[in-house]
Amino acid sequence: MDNQITSLQNPKIKGALKLNDRRERNQSGLFLIEGYRELKRAAEGGVKVQSLFICPEFFLGENEEGLIQQIKQKGAEVFACATHVFEKLSYRDRPDGLIGIGVQMKMGLAELAKHIAGKKNPFLIVAEAIEKPGNLGTILRSADAAGADGVIVCDRCTDIYNPNVVRASVGTLFTLPVVEAQSVETLDWLNERGVRVVAATPSASEEFTKTDLKGPVAIAVGTEQLGLSKQWMDAADIRVRIPMHGVADSLNVATATTLLLYEVVRQRN
Amino acid sequence: MDNQITSLQNPKIKGALKLNDRRERNQSGLFLIEGYRELKRAAEGGVKVQSLFICPEFFLGENEEGLIQQIKQKGAEVFACATHVFEKLSYRDRPDGLIGIGVQMKMGLAELAKHIAGKKNPFLIVAEAIEKPGNLGTILRSADAAGADGVIVCDRCTDIYNPNVVRASVGTLFTLPVVEAQSVETLDWLNERGVRVVAATPSASEEFTKTDLKGPVAIAVGTEQLGLSKQWMDAADIRVRIPMHGVADSLNVATATTLLLYEVVRQRN
Repeated sequence: MDNQITSLQNPKIKGALKLNDRRERNQSGLFLIEGYRELKRAAEGGVKVQSLFICPEFFLGENEEGLIQQIKQKGAEVFACATHVFEKLSYRDRPDGLIGIGVQMKMGLAELAKHIAGKKNPFLIVAEAIEKPGNLGTILRSADAAGADGVIVCDRCTDIYNPNVVRASVGTLFTLPVVEAQSVETLDWLNERGVRVVAATPSASEEFTKTDLKGPVAIAVGTEQLGLSKQWMDAADIRVRIPMHGVADSLNVATATTLLLYEVVRQRN
Repeated sequence: MDNQITSLQNPKIKGALKLNDRRERNQSGLFLIEGYRELKRAAEGGVKVQSLFICPEFFLGENEEGLIQQIKQKGAEVFACATHVFEKLSYRDRPDGLIGIGVQMKMGLAELAKHIAGKKNPFLIVAEAIEKPGNLGTILRSADAAGADGVIVCDRCTDIYNPNVVRASVGTLFTLPVVEAQSVETLDWLNERGVRVVAATPSASEEFTKTDLKGPVAIAVGTEQLGLSKQWMDAADIRVRIPMHGVADSLNVATATTLLLYEVVRQRN
């Protein structure tokens, strides 16, 4: 029988709740993974899960038992929670009864280099200083869908272990190579590998659908408010424009990124 | 001198705060418009603003005074608020000192018909039962950017007057024709006008970039969880597939919509 938790004062619960705080995530190297789909992808991606909190009353009828066994066999301690305890832990309106504490993956540029070694035309994304976790997570989800080789998060504003990044990425964070790095080292790294930086800017003359993106590229996108920094804009090898036909002068950053990613897919198809 | 509000107990403030509640919005026919950019677009779009709450301490150095005068001349009462009062009213982390109470536009299919009359190839979006205000707002923002002729929100889950729709739309809600309608009447309306319904589904054989979207089209998208309803999927004249190259089986609904919209733009270019 699994351990039972019925009190919010339980130290395991208190410890887990602290992981909603970024400082605590940074210090502990741990983070929360909520949801069946997300935990399934974490297991697929080889993410180490330390503890697993379950609440069968909330199960949606997926293969929860199978997933719990799989995670348990990899060394996780499992705790069955009373509904009120689980609800407190959950970040969602409609919890599905599964929340894990994972160990941060902390992939570096060196590992990403191995991952793309031998690829003739690496297809990467650089996300610079994105503020909203939902946007960063959505960019990861689109990167997965477009079959990109990896995402480099530069000069992070939002850490990739934020619960809303995990959620908006629908767990693709765990199966896609995602690296956190500084801009300077990233620019050098891309340069050494002949990967061309693609920046979208309203001032570019060429439309993104009319620019050759078939070679080795890193699609670079910046903050919601200001777009890419001068550093990245100056470093861009290819500048493209997304046509704007309305009153607004920009798109949401995750939707703009997705347009650029799928233009690469279209051209390479 | 404008009216001064220093107390949270002020009935004007209490009335405004109630508009965060959907039921109150429905009953009163009013809604909140926060932000310089959003209020500017509301003024451009001819939205009636009843009351305007200002807090100059938060102004960002746009032409706030000009906008206030413009809105005042159209009949709005202006109230200067103490910072703590304004912060309570604000929906944002970083308020910019301007919040209005607007009168809901309530555009109907008949008005949209006038708007597209004479257009050879109307370009519309149908958003069916989108749950998250952020997604609905982002779809509106992309519809504006792609130069679509209008958006029909069917069987609404989120009302278009939700503060997060206004925010994520960056005010394009006010300049773009947006209609709320039922699915049955919308399908008849599109059918009568020869507008072909385009649905994205993983089971379609043709990719969206290889399907002719140059004619009169309505891009139809559905809920975050389940996609379009059977009613809309059955009614679709054109089914397209967005290729998925990763572990996840779908994109965020607003990003998927944007891909389809910009494919129409690309093909018509």
